[in-house]
Amino acid sequence: MPKILIVCHSKSGNTAAMAEAVATGVKNAGVEVILKKVQETNVDDFLGPEGIIIGSPTYFAATTAEIKRLIDDSIKHYKNLEGKVGAAFASAGGIGGGGETAILDILRAFLVHGMIVPGFVTGGHYGPLSIGAPDDERKQVCMEFGSKVAEIVKKLHPAG
Amino acid sequence: MPKILIVCHSKSGNTAAMAEAVATGVKNAGVEVILKKVQETNVDDFLGPEGIIIGSPTYFAATTAEIKRLIDDSIKHYKNLEGKVGAAFASAGGIGGGGETAILDILRAFLVHGMIVPGFVTGGHYGPLSIGAPDDERKQVCMEFGSKVAEIVKKLHPAG
Amino acid sequence: MPKILIVCHSKSGNTAAMAEAVATGVKNAGVEVILKKVQETNVDDFLGPEGIIIGSPTYFAATTAEIKRLIDDSIKHYKNLEGKVGAAFASAGGIGGGGETAILDILRAFLVHGMIVPGFVTGGHYGPLSIGAPDDERKQVCMEFGSKVAEIVKKLHPAG
Amino acid sequence: MPKILIVCHSKSGNTAAMAEAVATGVKNAGVEVILKKVQETNVDDFLGPEGIIIGSPTYFAATTAEIKRLIDDSIKHYKNLEGKVGAAFASAGGIGGGGETAILDILRAFLVHGMIVPGFVTGGHYGPLSIGAPDDERKQVCMEFGSKVAEIVKKLHPAG
Repeated sequence: MPKILIVCHSKSGNTAAMAEAVATGVKNAGVEVILKKVQETNVDDFLGPEGIIIGSPTYFAATTAEIKRLIDDSIKHYKNLEGKVGAAFASAGGIGGGGETAILDILRAFLVHGMIVPGFVTGGHYGPLSIGAPDDERKQVCMEFGSKVAEIVKKLHPAG
Repeated sequence: MPKILIVCHSKSGNTAAMAEAVATGVKNAGVEVILKKVQETNVDDFLGPEGIIIGSPTYFAATTAEIKRLIDDSIKHYKNLEGKVGAAFASAGGIGGGGETAILDILRAFLVHGMIVPGFVTGGHYGPLSIGAPDDERKQVCMEFGSKVAEIVKKLHPAG
Repeated sequence: MPKILIVCHSKSGNTAAMAEAVATGVKNAGVEVILKKVQETNVDDFLGPEGIIIGSPTYFAATTAEIKRLIDDSIKHYKNLEGKVGAAFASAGGIGGGGETAILDILRAFLVHGMIVPGFVTGGHYGPLSIGAPDDERKQVCMEFGSKVAEIVKKLHPAG
Repeated sequence: MPKILIVCHSKSGNTAAMAEAVATGVKNAGVEVILKKVQETNVDDFLGPEGIIIGSPTYFAATTAEIKRLIDDSIKHYKNLEGKVGAAFASAGGIGGGGETAILDILRAFLVHGMIVPGFVTGGHYGPLSIGAPDDERKQVCMEFGSKVAEIVKKLHPAG
């Protein structure tokens, strides 16, 4: 059975609430979830799962330095993550507050790893974005996103 | 007296409504405004004003092809726009719908022209973004943005 | 047998030379290639193939308006390209001349289409970039890129 | 007399060599330079100078986590850096290796601070990029970039 690691950095709880909804969506699609806070995540955790989803609050229109630290450390496994599926989501303080570019920061890191990055025709093209705390509509978007990523992981890595 | 050209592409009217509010803000700060639709804009219009503001709806998380056409044609005046002030705004269909990257597309073109691009501590870091039609709060954001850009133009080009 | 459409815009011939090398790489990996100039490309051409690769020269640190026009027109088939593989390459006039952001422009459009975008651990993370005319090393990079994209298309769409 | 702070992160020495050339250019234009390594930089150093230039090696097509840490910490002085001039440069491991997006990462942070970001018609539109160690041509580009930024700082902040 394939697995997806969700790494989440949350200071206000908004990104964590999105992560929970994403995790539910992944599970609903029949894929195992490992949900970790960035502080508890070791880059070795990237090796096992077939998909990696990272969620970040938006700091200076980008991911937090903590997420960037994890990404830099993942150089340890460079070329070993190739072909895994990568996706991202973010919370931001306002409309036009840089949340889209924060998501793209993470996707760009996945591309450097030679990973496979899907886009989305509904609910945020690059991945889900919530302005402040996610309401029910945003949680639904996160859930559908999780399911969608899981379906792609199953297609690309059916045996896990 | 310095002048600012506002070029706007609007299919639904949302970006045009934003452009009107931006124009009001520019005028309130004592700077002359020339407001044009992209269809009526010739790249020669870029030469006179000390500031250029471009507004676009979001198509495929980017500006419209019409805006890109205008930008490409502006190669005619390459190096002659250096030092002018450039700013941008966009409307988009949804949160995470690519509006931020549409704004950045325009700012990047201004940077290639050697123009001066200011950021904003309120109301959208890269420039104003409206999800759908701008409500009163978004119009206020657009107005303050117009005034802010006008103040920078006055500082950099006091004599016009 | 799966197919890949390569659409290329070339004014100086540099991007066309890259496209030829990419096409060779795709064929070497056993995937059929349709190579078209942007002027000859109709968005209906996007429907058949399982992978779409777009190459552009760099105009204002972005794709050309012609490529953006094609992308905007592809709205006709919105949601029908979901799951196809998308990749991009570019030529640029100089180092730091905006070629990377031109490639990313195309990848962002593919993400909006819900397409699957792979990254690369060798030869340009977002896709191949040539400064001026591609030399033998750059052609090799393009060829390997074409093969890599073809392998991903075969994995995702084995039956074509 | 106006001042420019240059903050540089260098692991291989390539970015430091660029920083030296940028510093020379700033001095040649008659502006005082403070050149610091990221490890020695405190965000309070951002308050005094009228211009801030940040240089980074490219890690995962972005700045290093150390540079992002400094940027995140600069929230301490949010709204107090408004109107200062910001510019950036980077070294990268290869053509298409993410150096342009690393430079843009820094510029985006400056925009969030409400700073003024100039573009460049020669030598790298977003700022100088060196593939590996800067050769004499790249050092010249860095020097001209430093002088250009200094001229803009003098124009915007003549009294320092």
